[in-house]
Amino acid sequence: MSHTASVVGASGFTGGELLRLLTSHPEFTVAQATSREYANKTIGSVHPNLRELDVRFSEPTDLDSVDVLFAATPHGVSMEHIDAFQEAADTVVDLSADFRLDSEAEYDEWYDGHSRPELLEESVYALPERNREELPGASLIAAGGCNATATILGLAPLFDGGILDGSEQLVVDVKVGSSEGGAGSSKASSHAERSGVVRPYAPTGHRHEAEIQAEFGCETAFSAHAVDMTRGAAATCHVFPDEPVTTGDLWGAFRETYDDEPFVRLVAGGTGVYRYPEPKAVAGTNYAEVGFELDPSNKRIVVFSAIDNMMKGSAGQAVHAANISCGFEETAGLGFQGLHPVGAP
Amino acid sequence: MSHTASVVGASGFTGGELLRLLTSHPEFTVAQATSREYANKTIGSVHPNLRELDVRFSEPTDLDSVDVLFAATPHGVSMEHIDAFQEAADTVVDLSADFRLDSEAEYDEWYDGHSRPELLEESVYALPERNREELPGASLIAAGGCNATATILGLAPLFDGGILDGSEQLVVDVKVGSSEGGAGSSKASSHAERSGVVRPYAPTGHRHEAEIQAEFGCETAFSAHAVDMTRGAAATCHVFPDEPVTTGDLWGAFRETYDDEPFVRLVAGGTGVYRYPEPKAVAGTNYAEVGFELDPSNKRIVVFSAIDNMMKGSAGQAVHAANISCGFEETAGLGFQGLHPVGAP
Amino acid sequence: MSHTASVVGASGFTGGELLRLLTSHPEFTVAQATSREYANKTIGSVHPNLRELDVRFSEPTDLDSVDVLFAATPHGVSMEHIDAFQEAADTVVDLSADFRLDSEAEYDEWYDGHSRPELLEESVYALPERNREELPGASLIAAGGCNATATILGLAPLFDGGILDGSEQLVVDVKVGSSEGGAGSSKASSHAERSGVVRPYAPTGHRHEAEIQAEFGCETAFSAHAVDMTRGAAATCHVFPDEPVTTGDLWGAFRETYDDEPFVRLVAGGTGVYRYPEPKAVAGTNYAEVGFELDPSNKRIVVFSAIDNMMKGSAGQAVHAANISCGFEETAGLGFQGLHPVGAP
Amino acid sequence: MSHTASVVGASGFTGGELLRLLTSHPEFTVAQATSREYANKTIGSVHPNLRELDVRFSEPTDLDSVDVLFAATPHGVSMEHIDAFQEAADTVVDLSADFRLDSEAEYDEWYDGHSRPELLEESVYALPERNREELPGASLIAAGGCNATATILGLAPLFDGGILDGSEQLVVDVKVGSSEGGAGSSKASSHAERSGVVRPYAPTGHRHEAEIQAEFGCETAFSAHAVDMTRGAAATCHVFPDEPVTTGDLWGAFRETYDDEPFVRLVAGGTGVYRYPEPKAVAGTNYAEVGFELDPSNKRIVVFSAIDNMMKGSAGQAVHAANISCGFEETAGLGFQGLHPVGAP
Repeated sequence: MSHTASVVGASGFTGGELLRLLTSHPEFTVAQATSREYANKTIGSVHPNLRELDVRFSEPTDLDSVDVLFAATPHGVSMEHIDAFQEAADTVVDLSADFRLDSEAEYDEWYDGHSRPELLEESVYALPERNREELPGASLIAAGGCNATATILGLAPLFDGGILDGSEQLVVDVKVGSSEGGAGSSKASSHAERSGVVRPYAPTGHRHEAEIQAEFGCETAFSAHAVDMTRGAAATCHVFPDEPVTTGDLWGAFRETYDDEPFVRLVAGGTGVYRYPEPKAVAGTNYAEVGFELDPSNKRIVVFSAIDNMMKGSAGQAVHAANISCGFEETAGLGFQGLHPVGAP
Repeated sequence: MSHTASVVGASGFTGGELLRLLTSHPEFTVAQATSREYANKTIGSVHPNLRELDVRFSEPTDLDSVDVLFAATPHGVSMEHIDAFQEAADTVVDLSADFRLDSEAEYDEWYDGHSRPELLEESVYALPERNREELPGASLIAAGGCNATATILGLAPLFDGGILDGSEQLVVDVKVGSSEGGAGSSKASSHAERSGVVRPYAPTGHRHEAEIQAEFGCETAFSAHAVDMTRGAAATCHVFPDEPVTTGDLWGAFRETYDDEPFVRLVAGGTGVYRYPEPKAVAGTNYAEVGFELDPSNKRIVVFSAIDNMMKGSAGQAVHAANISCGFEETAGLGFQGLHPVGAP
Repeated sequence: MSHTASVVGASGFTGGELLRLLTSHPEFTVAQATSREYANKTIGSVHPNLRELDVRFSEPTDLDSVDVLFAATPHGVSMEHIDAFQEAADTVVDLSADFRLDSEAEYDEWYDGHSRPELLEESVYALPERNREELPGASLIAAGGCNATATILGLAPLFDGGILDGSEQLVVDVKVGSSEGGAGSSKASSHAERSGVVRPYAPTGHRHEAEIQAEFGCETAFSAHAVDMTRGAAATCHVFPDEPVTTGDLWGAFRETYDDEPFVRLVAGGTGVYRYPEPKAVAGTNYAEVGFELDPSNKRIVVFSAIDNMMKGSAGQAVHAANISCGFEETAGLGFQGLHPVGAP
Repeated sequence: MSHTASVVGASGFTGGELLRLLTSHPEFTVAQATSREYANKTIGSVHPNLRELDVRFSEPTDLDSVDVLFAATPHGVSMEHIDAFQEAADTVVDLSADFRLDSEAEYDEWYDGHSRPELLEESVYALPERNREELPGASLIAAGGCNATATILGLAPLFDGGILDGSEQLVVDVKVGSSEGGAGSSKASSHAERSGVVRPYAPTGHRHEAEIQAEFGCETAFSAHAVDMTRGAAATCHVFPDEPVTTGDLWGAFRETYDDEPFVRLVAGGTGVYRYPEPKAVAGTNYAEVGFELDPSNKRIVVFSAIDNMMKGSAGQAVHAANISCGFEETAGLGFQGLHPVGAP
């Protein structure tokens, strides 16, 4: 029997992506899609790809009881409304940063004060490739952040395989699309100012460093840049292992970590136009592409990782986590393979 | 029991799109994907979205027997190899222009000489919204061209509803993405020269006029422009009916023609950002959006139509036609709803 | 001796373009650049290309006496402040729509009520290729609108040469960049929603029709579309002359009208990638490219016209008009040739 | 009296940019523009921005005597024809990589064998901000490469100011536009495949590392990525000084190095949309923007540098060098300030 699901904050970009995934998901039925701003308007008036759905946004104040509630609200909103969310649903999957970190101290280091710090320990961070065993039965799941997900998936095999131990210098240079800024508007995000950019964004102090640090137990030198695409996050990691490695070592490490993963594609050493991970190749999908190249001259490993920030970086990851939590097939509702060719995704 | 299908010319853009659709289609199993240039290479080396498929291109010279053969070869190739295609398959669906027109005279007016003119009458032109009843059991199906499809779907309700009778001036101004040029390369299609363009392309004498003329029995004043997207064709038609019409008349005509169509969305009179048909809203999908606006001051109807040229304009249309021909659900394998937001699709 | 000039509304897009032109103009010295929002901030904090200028925005309430005041304010502002502008300057060049039309009746047909209608007759519309003789000594000049300029320059030779007389059907299909919307922000103009679009914009009732009608004395069937570029307006005009014409007739008409024009390039019948007028080819310049193609099959002339809406469509046109008004070389300060290659301009 | 100049390889992208600069240069007159492929065709048939020039390409085999010959040919061509170039001109400015390095050994490490190695020592590498004193009277000048120029200009203040000494780890992550690939065509550079990319390009072993190494005497960990713009190179350098530094130290170092430089803009610590160096802000100009941000948490300095690869990265740099070599004003012919807004430059 189908599970019921609601999306709170459904008029935003990740909310729309959740609706897209859930309405064609074999195991979920959408009960409510809330939006304060667009309450009573059709979903298609905001998300043109969902015009066939004959559903209207509802007020977020009157939540139905459902099996799973997905919260796609701006940072800070979930912690205010978490009691209502948890009253409405057995499982809450939050896509904001509110419950990603493990302690109040950690949260305060990167954000601005948490109103429900006691829930930080209880909540389960969801990057299924790293911690799927914690998800079944979890009542509060925090889907991992886009840039953190891209970085963690790229570097994980090096830690898993003992090539890095956290004492090395890790430089992470991320390029992101405009959907990371959400559905609002500002001068900086207007088309005339934002198109064609290579624009440093939070070159120091980016909050997603916190999640990476929580995963690997070490700092990264992290910078992000806005580039001219709508969807996508691509992380290039420059790392310098203490001991010499070979390309064979790297293949071994990446295969060991990812050979059984349904959503990770290892892209390295190929031919043709697409020889490295690229956001274009995964646009609209829940796949991550990861790869590497060894620079013998300066003992550097360059690691590449590319995701769709709206999918593997948020809504897709959230549905993947919910699938595991609910005991569904991990890939249920996440089968879209992506397009070729595709422009600025 | 599943039907078998082959794709000839599978390394091109429409060939890749066919593979994408057929490999996740509930009724088809892909037997062969041929490519002269990439024979024995993996499909994923050309189409990065299909990296999971553990399939290699085969030589086009040795065709397996299948239920349906899709030919995604450049114009002129299918007519040369049609005997081999028909020997291999009960049903051949051709995506080129080779079999779209009905007579040698018509063909010679727009193209350069047909080697198998006797097949022109036998072949069935496929734009399912216009002639789905001709498709069941057809042995040679010619999927409609992208710009013609966009134009015909936009104007059809006006002809169906008696608002136009073919004696009026019809101006069609189409904007198209770069995938229409196929997977080859040229100076004009290089990124540095092609990005950011509004570039007239075949402003007179465009060959797709032939298909429109065949449908409506009258000429159109047709021009195309390349714009900065990869996928998509948007037709704006400016038409001047002899008798005054109201917006209500137009709603009536469009609803009458399209209310039961699974792949046509009527977009007119709405609110928000997406108030008219747009290629972005249908990128990756088999949907066409059609709409209209009445200009009372100059007695003009402006008709809008937007499709993904790779889908409703070629591969999606071909699969839709094959679904009908084989007796499957019309929408089988064509359920993708599209993305929001999405960049240059 | 150099003339002094001020720019009111200098933090907007056209205001910034005026500053760029005037600060490197051989005959003008910039006295003031006003901005209510950015008063006392450096010009470079808004217009990054002007970072070398050690100038700050001033309040618009305290205007210096100058020779020429350029008003680059939103529609409706100039008519409110015109007395202050005219007190400050001998010549006011307004870039808004406030003084483009000739009578209150005309204005009310397209806009919302004029507070100083008595000035409409006095003001001089400036599209120098059409009326440069009216500009010397004019005290109130209204620079022509971008889409109107593109359309008028494209069609003028056909009227000048007697090929059209105003009784024919004229269809004008314009494609425009995002800078036409100005420096503000909205959901529709955000990068994620605006990139990659072919989006109908004012497909009927576009206000620039008023200027075209004023020039040629007849209506046009005018529609605009937003496409993925920042600068640029490209008009494709489909016209159907009563009498048959030849390509030679068209060459004759276009040469007659434009052979001595310093800012109009006739682009037709060439080879290579750039065979028709294109906005890319004139980005950043005051040039208009115009061209044509004859469609013998349906007796249609397709006319193309491409400009940079920020230059020939506003700031460049304004400086061109001021040059004539002040008795300078027409091309003074407007010599930039544009770039090749250039992306989405 | 004006100097004469020729451009060999004038149909390429950098050749066209040289023609643009030289034809509006106050001190140069263009004698010849050669192109094997387009000989006898008009310059405007290839470079649409130069349509007003009534000049045709000539064969490269018959060179006039000129004061300065600019060679904008592919790598390897200049070394073959250097005797003819030097016979034709007192000063040869080469824009290829042929004469950038100082010794055959160095050349062989990064390229494939030099046919005239004895000239490597004689030639003068031109990055005027670093070695303008070597340029007057030089007979063979090698203009610096685009990515190397961006990187060197970004890091130079740190070396000049003693913050780095070459023993530190230097990570350089560069984002480049499609014009870096030149005017040819390939599948990878076709619009459909190239648009919207974040595509690693030479992530290890990039040849421009050689120039950086020659400047600073140390290795860099250098990777490049293709992104969706036509012009532009943006270098983000992550460096880890041995001793702690303050933001004040960095301001001091950057000001000391660049305060008198006419083409370097220091962009750091500002407000508004453009707070860091960006390629958009310098598109079409000879400016470099450089800036920095200190990351106290991991003792990293992030250095940003942005240029137009066609200008400061090649043709503009070459003209700048020629200006110095000939004793002209350094900024002669290089005054264009750039545009705002501008799309994908």
